[in-house]
Amino acid sequence: MRYSLLAGGKRVRPMLCLAACELVGGFESMAMPAACAVEMIHTMSLMHDDLPCMDNDDLRRGKPTNHIVFGEDVAVLAGDALLAFAFEYIAVYTLNVSPLRIVRAVAELAKAIGAEGLVAGQVVDICSEGLSEVGLEQLEYIHVHKTAKLLEGAVVLGAILGGGTDEEVEKLRRYARSIGLLFQVVDDILDVTRSSQELGKTAGKDLVADKVTYPKLMGIEKSREFAEKLLNDAKELLAGFDQEKAAPLIALANYIAYRQN
Amino acid sequence: MRYSLLAGGKRVRPMLCLAACELVGGFESMAMPAACAVEMIHTMSLMHDDLPCMDNDDLRRGKPTNHIVFGEDVAVLAGDALLAFAFEYIAVYTLNVSPLRIVRAVAELAKAIGAEGLVAGQVVDICSEGLSEVGLEQLEYIHVHKTAKLLEGAVVLGAILGGGTDEEVEKLRRYARSIGLLFQVVDDILDVTRSSQELGKTAGKDLVADKVTYPKLMGIEKSREFAEKLLNDAKELLAGFDQEKAAPLIALANYIAYRQN
Repeated sequence: MRYSLLAGGKRVRPMLCLAACELVGGFESMAMPAACAVEMIHTMSLMHDDLPCMDNDDLRRGKPTNHIVFGEDVAVLAGDALLAFAFEYIAVYTLNVSPLRIVRAVAELAKAIGAEGLVAGQVVDICSEGLSEVGLEQLEYIHVHKTAKLLEGAVVLGAILGGGTDEEVEKLRRYARSIGLLFQVVDDILDVTRSSQELGKTAGKDLVADKVTYPKLMGIEKSREFAEKLLNDAKELLAGFDQEKAAPLIALANYIAYRQN
Repeated sequence: MRYSLLAGGKRVRPMLCLAACELVGGFESMAMPAACAVEMIHTMSLMHDDLPCMDNDDLRRGKPTNHIVFGEDVAVLAGDALLAFAFEYIAVYTLNVSPLRIVRAVAELAKAIGAEGLVAGQVVDICSEGLSEVGLEQLEYIHVHKTAKLLEGAVVLGAILGGGTDEEVEKLRRYARSIGLLFQVVDDILDVTRSSQELGKTAGKDLVADKVTYPKLMGIEKSREFAEKLLNDAKELLAGFDQEKAAPLIALANYIAYRQN
């Protein structure tokens, strides 16, 4: 659990969670356990996706994947334990927030993971490999679920725990959906344009595995234009908020759009 | 998820959860989502334990195991989704209970699963296979974690959601620990004394895999005496409660002790 959770990574999800909490007027500390929990979920989903029976990846964040180091059995179990620990962490360590909001946060996080979240995306992704007729709609379904749902969860958890109104929570949910898709489009672009060393993971993997990607479906140039549009959508959704407090979320959207790994 | 969750099974954990809720004065409906959640966790732990990289079981509850039917990748993911859905189900569908008690229930369930619960037991179990020097202490550690923790979780969740006092919750926790160990001792005895057809799973599996069991360590007769002692301990812990309301928990203890599969 420690090996994969502390292996580095960009920590985009925790930062989103904390920034959303502060944007709606909460203190960072209110969303800190949830921010950690969201990163645990992200890590466990990578551990399970990397397994030999799934994407069979040997390298992640520049280090051997969990099952390479500890074996498949332990990698499955460590992922399970991280998944459970995420909920324990929110339930036990969230302080100065009403229990009602904590229960809402638990429900949101759980939805982001399961049969309408991460898992749905990974299942459709697995079923799409090697198929020639995968279209844009299915590609979006995969990415919305594999990537955007947990980014959405991170933002929404922060907004709920920070004391946001229902309207604020829903506006931030839409912001998160835009950057969630943005995140995946940029990932796909980077996969075909950067080397393994720069990425810290096996590059060109998606092409070799015959996975459908945005560059494959619409070309690199159109993919870049699509990323630009999503970035602008995200920024517009933050327009109604205090711009000083919105600065971290704007910066994160820019970071996601312009990152090089 | 549906295939394994609805494949039958004794539903001991949900019954314990509901009975504990009623024992402390709650309505069955208060603990019903938690009872379902606990069964989801039990099911997902079986799905993952049955995987080829773990116990490699082909048969469970008289049916082919999940990965035999749907493949290893889907079996891993369906387990993950059930784990998350359990928390979603408690958080979304528990009604007429204070959110504070729901948060406590979430924390209890999470602890029963992770690195100090089910997963801990399975990891030590895996690491013990083929070792000759596994002692009684290590065997108890495995069973307390693999089996007793979730039975304890079921009872404690029911007691918390039903409005039990801290003292009532702790007494029922100790009851659950006794029957948790009882459950495993009886399982071990049945594994060596019954056929696969009667059990609905591969019999003698523990012996073939060179797993440590109570009958192997202390013999069948002493194992039966130990089971009897645990049953009496469990019943004594219920002595302080309304005996009419305690009847289902007494009956469940007897059922666990005297079941034939």
